[in-house]
Amino acid sequence: MEEKLNLLNKSIAEIASLTGIQALLDWDQQVNMPPGGVEDRSNQAALIGELIHHRSTSPELGQLIEDLAKEIGDLDAEDDSARIVRQAKRNYDMLTKIPVEKMVEFIRLTTQAHEVWFKARQTDDFKLYQPVLQRIIELKKEQAELFKPYDHIYDPLLDMFEPGMKTAEVQEIFATLRKEQVALLKEISQAAQVDNSFIKKNYKKDLQEKFAKHVISKFGYDWQRGRLDLAPHPFTTEFGHGDVRITTRYLENDGLSALFSTMHEAGHAMYEQGLDPKYYRTSLAGGTSLAFHESQSRMWENLVGRSKEFWSFFYPSFQMLFPEHLEEVPFERFYKGINRVAPSLIRVEADEATYNLHIMLRMEIEIGLVEGSIQSKDLPEIWNAKMQEYLGITPPNDTLGVLQDVHWSGGLYGYFSTYALGNLISVQLWEKMLSDMPNMPDDMAKGEFSGILGWLRTNVHQFGSKYRPQELIQKITGSKISPEPYMRYLNQKYRQIYNI
Amino acid sequence: MEEKLNLLNKSIAEIASLTGIQALLDWDQQVNMPPGGVEDRSNQAALIGELIHHRSTSPELGQLIEDLAKEIGDLDAEDDSARIVRQAKRNYDMLTKIPVEKMVEFIRLTTQAHEVWFKARQTDDFKLYQPVLQRIIELKKEQAELFKPYDHIYDPLLDMFEPGMKTAEVQEIFATLRKEQVALLKEISQAAQVDNSFIKKNYKKDLQEKFAKHVISKFGYDWQRGRLDLAPHPFTTEFGHGDVRITTRYLENDGLSALFSTMHEAGHAMYEQGLDPKYYRTSLAGGTSLAFHESQSRMWENLVGRSKEFWSFFYPSFQMLFPEHLEEVPFERFYKGINRVAPSLIRVEADEATYNLHIMLRMEIEIGLVEGSIQSKDLPEIWNAKMQEYLGITPPNDTLGVLQDVHWSGGLYGYFSTYALGNLISVQLWEKMLSDMPNMPDDMAKGEFSGILGWLRTNVHQFGSKYRPQELIQKITGSKISPEPYMRYLNQKYRQIYNI
Repeated sequence: MEEKLNLLNKSIAEIASLTGIQALLDWDQQVNMPPGGVEDRSNQAALIGELIHHRSTSPELGQLIEDLAKEIGDLDAEDDSARIVRQAKRNYDMLTKIPVEKMVEFIRLTTQAHEVWFKARQTDDFKLYQPVLQRIIELKKEQAELFKPYDHIYDPLLDMFEPGMKTAEVQEIFATLRKEQVALLKEISQAAQVDNSFIKKNYKKDLQEKFAKHVISKFGYDWQRGRLDLAPHPFTTEFGHGDVRITTRYLENDGLSALFSTMHEAGHAMYEQGLDPKYYRTSLAGGTSLAFHESQSRMWENLVGRSKEFWSFFYPSFQMLFPEHLEEVPFERFYKGINRVAPSLIRVEADEATYNLHIMLRMEIEIGLVEGSIQSKDLPEIWNAKMQEYLGITPPNDTLGVLQDVHWSGGLYGYFSTYALGNLISVQLWEKMLSDMPNMPDDMAKGEFSGILGWLRTNVHQFGSKYRPQELIQKITGSKISPEPYMRYLNQKYRQIYNI
Repeated sequence: MEEKLNLLNKSIAEIASLTGIQALLDWDQQVNMPPGGVEDRSNQAALIGELIHHRSTSPELGQLIEDLAKEIGDLDAEDDSARIVRQAKRNYDMLTKIPVEKMVEFIRLTTQAHEVWFKARQTDDFKLYQPVLQRIIELKKEQAELFKPYDHIYDPLLDMFEPGMKTAEVQEIFATLRKEQVALLKEISQAAQVDNSFIKKNYKKDLQEKFAKHVISKFGYDWQRGRLDLAPHPFTTEFGHGDVRITTRYLENDGLSALFSTMHEAGHAMYEQGLDPKYYRTSLAGGTSLAFHESQSRMWENLVGRSKEFWSFFYPSFQMLFPEHLEEVPFERFYKGINRVAPSLIRVEADEATYNLHIMLRMEIEIGLVEGSIQSKDLPEIWNAKMQEYLGITPPNDTLGVLQDVHWSGGLYGYFSTYALGNLISVQLWEKMLSDMPNMPDDMAKGEFSGILGWLRTNVHQFGSKYRPQELIQKITGSKISPEPYMRYLNQKYRQIYNI
């Protein structure tokens, strides 16, 4: 078995080299590549993609995994080898279950759908988009059916991003969350609004960068194993655990957007930097799930980066860098301003108190679409009704409504919920961390974050994807994913900010 | 045949994608990669290297080339298909002639030799280096013998870099060149020296970069298909003909070194940018030979970049950027200063009038080593004697003498001569260009270089490696590679500068 396991690890390590190369091709394209490079770069990316697919789905690999699975028996055992094989089997099954010709059809359709979606959004024409969207939904249903048996047809779609998670579980979590978050938002909306006009100005880019680098250095982002660059959209990428890079972009009319997005990406990156080296280049490299990944980015961005303690330490330096905007803004006003809550039409602009509502709306629609209780032709109407119900606003058109996100045109169903689950997990971890280290807020107020990073390394980062998300959160906190801690957090924070 | 040719082109295009990826892995490592990336990057580079080798030496490819070669018959015909097959055959033979186990031995030995050389240079200990150097020479002789029949055992080594070039030809060229260049240098050495102290200062890096970018933009370097970055050593690399990047480095105590090296690399890059798109990703992509490549970089660096006409246009701007260093330096003094001739111990620091002497010395030694007329143990003595004879100076130690270059430890024999041949070719092309476009110097003095680049595109760049070096120079100028134009150039330029 030892020998077979070595063979498996060798195969997976080679695939990891190829995916690292693929990530570099993409990063360079977004960060450095001159326009003339496009044609050769797509050839290169296609070739590497082919090599990865070929190796990841080879019958030899399948046989090896099959043999090992038999020899090991209990793939859920705590043992590393069992988990390595379990994860390899999961990845292999996921890639091979869908027949190649169906996969090709799917890729062709989503490529086309992306263009149609883009045009529909530009011309505010949902009807243009609807037929291709409908076809994608049908293909997704076909894909889901290949993973029978399941409790709900949405389960396999969810499972692609959140291993082991069930539709019923998420629905139950979201039912409580939605009710309580809508209620809180209503109260906030009736309270006196806080001012954040001092943020919506032009802050010098080089000073923004200096400050953001300073902050994530304090967090513990390891510059020996990463770098920060400019790209049209912020993202994290890795070419190996020794080289986990992040990007950001600076807005002309917002002095903090880049900072928060840099903290967010640093949160993702530190998760990858924190993996136990024994898992490098194995099937257990990479985080537990998308939601767990998001819990890390949101924790550093929100629980740390938008906290009173954080800014009690950093505000004097930030004020010093930007006296023209902040000289006359006292700390309390600043702190409230960066935590301003306002229902918005656009998900990516949403704040902590409204973000999950955008997510839940999308997940309800997705479930409806695949189980057939919602028809794609009715989407604009349903979207707008839910927006009014949850956020109290109605999009004036579909471009600012149902057409805003790229995800569905790319065939990403089951993905959105991970954003909200990530928020919930972040606070569950936070509460446990606070009970383990009651000094943590004081440390933050001293600009000291090594306790937090150390705790995350020990409890989350080191394990990679050894555990499933529900398994890991249970192991750490004793509970499964739950909305209560998040609601406690929102209530405590925002009732103070809005005096309610 | 059509079908087989398509198959060949497809194979070669895929190998081109892989070598483009290999180049990106290397560029990123030198320009961007954080230290932590080393381990994964070497795995990635090794894997891509293996894939390239595997595909480039596959028996199927060999058979395909063999079949096509038979069907085409005359591989030297002017026809593109014939040339594509000829070049593919050359590449395939070169890679497969040396048995794999011999290649592995060679790679192992040169890897080891590099470390030994590095240590020997640091401790000025040639004796430490000599045994491994001797072993490399023996392996190079064995390699050369696999390419029998030849006129001279050094021919196959030369041919690896200069297709079709013979030792006897180069020896004849160099015999004249050496005599005349040594004589001119003697006269210069006895004349009053010119001053260049104003260059040897700290020039602001960002302004150096601004100026260098301005200059190569004027040359016609295409920024839509390239970029300039910082790296420890200047180099040109390409990921495809639409993405040809260059690097430079700024010295603390020299205001022009980076500029000249940037012009040099831009010369290489514009060669690649100028290839006819019909040859992209075929066996004819890439320049004719190393010497032809060097002719382009040296032309832009020296014939253009160190000319009176160039600076009559650019000096006012350059002076404006650096008034603290140049305000009181009149044009004539500046022009003479940047063309200062002084025999130096180190090749890479040599000027136009001495550079070739460094090269010829090395080539004579290489030939002696492989034909057996020189013993490796005698190298320091022979090196120093030749330095005295050609340049009039004797290295005080081997670190500044025979140990200065990395090339031999890497098994690069036959490479050095391409530097000097490149210089010769650059002036041969220049004379022809001047007779085709007598206005060219006036254009340069107006900051207008499109005539030069256009001429080079038409006569050199577009063809890639369709022609062998001697064939191409003959086609363009009517003569083979010859030392006379270069000597005319040196005499005319330096007799004026040194009043001799």
